[in-house]
Amino acid sequence: MTSKTTQRNFSFVDLMGLEQRYRAAFVNSLSGFKSVALIGTTDAKHQTNLAIFNSFVHIGANPPYIGFISRPDSVDRHTLSNILESGHYTINHINEEIYQQAHQSSARYPKDISEFDATHLTPDYKSGFKAPYVKESHIQLGVQFKERIDIKTNHTILIIGQIQQVYFPNDCLCEDGFLDIEKAKTITCSGLDSYHKTERLARLTYAKTDRALSYAKLGYIE
Amino acid sequence: MTSKTTQRNFSFVDLMGLEQRYRAAFVNSLSGFKSVALIGTTDAKHQTNLAIFNSFVHIGANPPYIGFISRPDSVDRHTLSNILESGHYTINHINEEIYQQAHQSSARYPKDISEFDATHLTPDYKSGFKAPYVKESHIQLGVQFKERIDIKTNHTILIIGQIQQVYFPNDCLCEDGFLDIEKAKTITCSGLDSYHKTERLARLTYAKTDRALSYAKLGYIE
Repeated sequence: MTSKTTQRNFSFVDLMGLEQRYRAAFVNSLSGFKSVALIGTTDAKHQTNLAIFNSFVHIGANPPYIGFISRPDSVDRHTLSNILESGHYTINHINEEIYQQAHQSSARYPKDISEFDATHLTPDYKSGFKAPYVKESHIQLGVQFKERIDIKTNHTILIIGQIQQVYFPNDCLCEDGFLDIEKAKTITCSGLDSYHKTERLARLTYAKTDRALSYAKLGYIE
Repeated sequence: MTSKTTQRNFSFVDLMGLEQRYRAAFVNSLSGFKSVALIGTTDAKHQTNLAIFNSFVHIGANPPYIGFISRPDSVDRHTLSNILESGHYTINHINEEIYQQAHQSSARYPKDISEFDATHLTPDYKSGFKAPYVKESHIQLGVQFKERIDIKTNHTILIIGQIQQVYFPNDCLCEDGFLDIEKAKTITCSGLDSYHKTERLARLTYAKTDRALSYAKLGYIE
């Protein structure tokens, strides 16, 4: 956009009148840049599953909880049933080297095909954790299922898990606990299919009513 | 990170043993790049309120729903009570020109001070919608409250709203409905205080099990 760009608008009625795939592409763009990652699970027969989700949300730090939205009827159905069955899953950040493989995991593979195999990503079992991590991912979370919330509005499901293990690159940790996920090459996405790397503008100091903001240092510990 | 970077890990016990602010900074980094935007509301006395949230999540496209996580006891308490009181709110994407003002809105201003005034952002009332948009924002959503979900795990709240109006730059809309929020200069954030602009890697075609991925065109309509 430029200073000459004109503004346009869609009302609710306009949105409901759009062709279905067009509306899906448009509305999925409205929630901003998304937290996108790969969820690794296994079923009762130790068959692995890997699926990309773009709906992660921070739920709490003390204790550490992370959530994501699942659709009961979508390609993520194996992920959901595996989580409810096994109680454990991994959340693996996506980097520039693997984003195409990560996107490919959204294809509708039959249950007896592991998306790890289909996308040439490597299952990695660590510290006795029951679900497989993605070896190629730089930030990996081992998560224990905590709460399932059925959303009345449209039958989507919020799954909340407690973070049990975190693996991360040592040189991305800062003195105050901030983990520099940009330095770890984590990417983001928008809409249903657009992937983006990032460039930091700044870290800002904690906002107070009686002082001006300033830039905060990164302060890597290594 | 480099190819020589060593991996480190924190267990649940390690995380619980961290100093509180350190743990908040760390765990808030784990959910990836976040959907960050400004929520505009008014109370019954027409006092405006503006607050930054970094927990938006796509809930559905048909009909169009968007959600966000709120803490009952946090600085966002005026936003939550205003939404429940008035039933309407706006969600405004943040761009590079206003991210510092957006961050400043998180300071704990008393209820009789509008964060619009305190941060020098401009309330914009359009098409009879009851809540104020942020004039300096390039993508603006008018949202009607739909469902409140109390999360048992830690008493956070998921607020879901139906999208009633969307304002966007005309030259950012693509033929298939994808809205190029990067072209609209929308930014993202990580952790509690790190802001990032983006650089597109690619749009990818819909993933199928029987064909290789390819790059999708953007195809702006203007």
